[in-house]
Amino acid sequence: MDPYKSLREAAYEANMEIPRRSLALYTWGNVSAFDADRAVFAIKPSGVAYEDLKAADMVIVDLEGKKVDGSLNPSSDTKTHLILYRSFPGIAGVTHTHSTYAVAWAQACRSVPVLGTTHADHCIHPIPCTDYISQDALARDYEEETGNLIVDTFRKQKLDPQEIPMVLVAGHGPFTWGPSAAKSVYHAAVLEEICKMAYVTGVLNPRIVGLPAYIVQKHYDRKHGAHAYYGQQIDR
Amino acid sequence: MDPYKSLREAAYEANMEIPRRSLALYTWGNVSAFDADRAVFAIKPSGVAYEDLKAADMVIVDLEGKKVDGSLNPSSDTKTHLILYRSFPGIAGVTHTHSTYAVAWAQACRSVPVLGTTHADHCIHPIPCTDYISQDALARDYEEETGNLIVDTFRKQKLDPQEIPMVLVAGHGPFTWGPSAAKSVYHAAVLEEICKMAYVTGVLNPRIVGLPAYIVQKHYDRKHGAHAYYGQQIDR
Amino acid sequence: MDPYKSLREAAYEANMEIPRRSLALYTWGNVSAFDADRAVFAIKPSGVAYEDLKAADMVIVDLEGKKVDGSLNPSSDTKTHLILYRSFPGIAGVTHTHSTYAVAWAQACRSVPVLGTTHADHCIHPIPCTDYISQDALARDYEEETGNLIVDTFRKQKLDPQEIPMVLVAGHGPFTWGPSAAKSVYHAAVLEEICKMAYVTGVLNPRIVGLPAYIVQKHYDRKHGAHAYYGQQIDR
Amino acid sequence: MDPYKSLREAAYEANMEIPRRSLALYTWGNVSAFDADRAVFAIKPSGVAYEDLKAADMVIVDLEGKKVDGSLNPSSDTKTHLILYRSFPGIAGVTHTHSTYAVAWAQACRSVPVLGTTHADHCIHPIPCTDYISQDALARDYEEETGNLIVDTFRKQKLDPQEIPMVLVAGHGPFTWGPSAAKSVYHAAVLEEICKMAYVTGVLNPRIVGLPAYIVQKHYDRKHGAHAYYGQQIDR
Repeated sequence: MDPYKSLREAAYEANMEIPRRSLALYTWGNVSAFDADRAVFAIKPSGVAYEDLKAADMVIVDLEGKKVDGSLNPSSDTKTHLILYRSFPGIAGVTHTHSTYAVAWAQACRSVPVLGTTHADHCIHPIPCTDYISQDALARDYEEETGNLIVDTFRKQKLDPQEIPMVLVAGHGPFTWGPSAAKSVYHAAVLEEICKMAYVTGVLNPRIVGLPAYIVQKHYDRKHGAHAYYGQQIDR
Repeated sequence: MDPYKSLREAAYEANMEIPRRSLALYTWGNVSAFDADRAVFAIKPSGVAYEDLKAADMVIVDLEGKKVDGSLNPSSDTKTHLILYRSFPGIAGVTHTHSTYAVAWAQACRSVPVLGTTHADHCIHPIPCTDYISQDALARDYEEETGNLIVDTFRKQKLDPQEIPMVLVAGHGPFTWGPSAAKSVYHAAVLEEICKMAYVTGVLNPRIVGLPAYIVQKHYDRKHGAHAYYGQQIDR
Repeated sequence: MDPYKSLREAAYEANMEIPRRSLALYTWGNVSAFDADRAVFAIKPSGVAYEDLKAADMVIVDLEGKKVDGSLNPSSDTKTHLILYRSFPGIAGVTHTHSTYAVAWAQACRSVPVLGTTHADHCIHPIPCTDYISQDALARDYEEETGNLIVDTFRKQKLDPQEIPMVLVAGHGPFTWGPSAAKSVYHAAVLEEICKMAYVTGVLNPRIVGLPAYIVQKHYDRKHGAHAYYGQQIDR
Repeated sequence: MDPYKSLREAAYEANMEIPRRSLALYTWGNVSAFDADRAVFAIKPSGVAYEDLKAADMVIVDLEGKKVDGSLNPSSDTKTHLILYRSFPGIAGVTHTHSTYAVAWAQACRSVPVLGTTHADHCIHPIPCTDYISQDALARDYEEETGNLIVDTFRKQKLDPQEIPMVLVAGHGPFTWGPSAAKSVYHAAVLEEICKMAYVTGVLNPRIVGLPAYIVQKHYDRKHGAHAYYGQQIDR
């Protein structure tokens, strides 16, 4: 019996959403599922095609980055995931994709303003875009420092990773997270759609400022507030 | 025997058009079917995924917003539907989606001009975009006041909801309606395509004014006028 | 035995390419197949959904516009097809769609310049866009005069409908034709792709003039010239 | 027994990726697979639809352009492939497509700048765009000179075809290559995505300069450098 079976299956199912929802071509994406009790996460092996992927292939890694179980090499982005699990309390899933419109905003080095309720339903703030990673940081440890860059961006701008479960890494692409692997990949699909809508909106009206704050707050609260009334049970 | 069986099926079938025609991701959309004789409508339950949805899940609500039948919570947008049924005579279906291009026009706070016959085949007027909902209205009852905002927009601009079966709510997205649930979701798909075409047109020629009025009227009349000759039977 | 069986089947097969290649939503498109010997054509019935369409539904119409065979009403665009068959020698198929990018160019009232070999492989000239139909012409007979508008555009600009098997009707959309119904719908798909490529090109480089004439001619000749060498047999 | 069976199958499988990944409509694209030992390559026959294509249809051609085996005519672009095999050491697959965004950049006569890691993962340089082919060269031998134009572009700009396995031919479209037919069509899909992302990025931020060189180098090295650590084995 594999003691990591359900963790691997959670990671596997979430990874398979990437091709299903066209969030990346080929192997360009990865999702991990975190088990807080055992302080390990299951992550996609590096460079394996989604059509060949099996739940048993998921690699188990601890929070020091050491492989605990599995025969394949973990995703090359493993250390970025690890830093997010160590730094953002309460998250249990991380997703990285190269989805077209999210990458385009990241390449344009632009945060995504809150232009409508589709955005506000998930997040009341602009989606932050980091600076380019510095040459020093990159020389130290690229993937670990990509994680640190995300964490520092949130810290400096006093952003709450619970409220903003997504970020754009400048010149690279999106990382998203959530209380489960499934939720983190859901956020990756949401972000791609928000980015596409915001792109078209900006062409249609370059002077648009964005949704008034009271509408932003209302939409978020109806799904995630203390008195949320969206859905069949409380789900924030 | 369920006395609302056929009403539920009409609502269910129309709701399933949303994922089929890619008019929204996940659960972001809802259609209702109205029974004028019994003054109730069947609407999608809140937050249920389309792949899990069954006709029997549709919630029956009356025009006061009271649940008449069904075990699940109705869509959080239920009161917006209700206001439209109370205010727009003759409509028997309402659809709300978050389709990409319609949302982008709504986020850009722009009405969609009549640029071609694809638009004129369905509506001789620009598709109106409301103002942002006011803070006062939002504080009273967000969903009900969203309905009122739509109704007021039509009233103030002297628009006929029979002639213009669609609207963009600023910063939010499209609502469409029609003589049946099926027709309301048809209008949602039409609106998305009109919005995409108008977007591309505006980039290709920012100075375009729009279709001359006599062509607009002709195209509408051939489908919907007193002497309509499109299709196999009179269908307006 | 249906004496129009093979003509109906040719029209039916070509009509089914419209949904298969996403050239129009719902019923917004029609293809006809012409039999020069009998001087009749088979055309899609008006307003029938593609999923319900059968080859036997195709309506047989003569060059005066009289229904010769079939129980349904022919496409409301029948007279436009008829004018093209009467005016453009050698064509045996006509297609009308509402494909997104071709409609956008038509709505922008812009001819499509020859920007690359994808265009030149099919046509050495810009795709012409007509003027808006005049109010007088529309009042006489809208569909017939739409045909006349196309024919006059070719006559005035001295264009050859054999060399340019496609046109954009301003504010409306594309009509395409060819030596068979299948070839006419092929040209509709080609035109949509050319229009999309030209749209993106114009955004990337608004100052682009277009492909030098000697490349245009070469590409066309390699497929359609006296010494064509593309494909397995001569196919122009 | 067919002595070219496995070469044909490699070419066939790679060709079938073109429709699968929507890299061209109809027959507009071709892939070849090169056997360096026998100095021949298998290439798609000209003008044959992908749905009718069989591995046995692949045409075997030598480096002088002579047909060695097969009953059909080879792709009209055969001589372009041939020049690339003769000039670029170590490549064993060539792909030509008419994918939408790559063609648009080629039609816009623009090289694609390195705007992000999706690009840098595959190539540390801008994707070069050639000049238009000259009238003299075209008159000599269009397809051969298209190959020479690519080779000269690399020579003059001192580019390494191992490092940049892709090019845009001005006014025409993309050619890509690699150590196998499969890898060359992979590069065609990568290029299309890079071109789409770069297009959207340019609209979002026309002043963007591109990814700092140290990030470009790092991303490339992690996949292709001497100490590559992406994937399960060394794969450059």
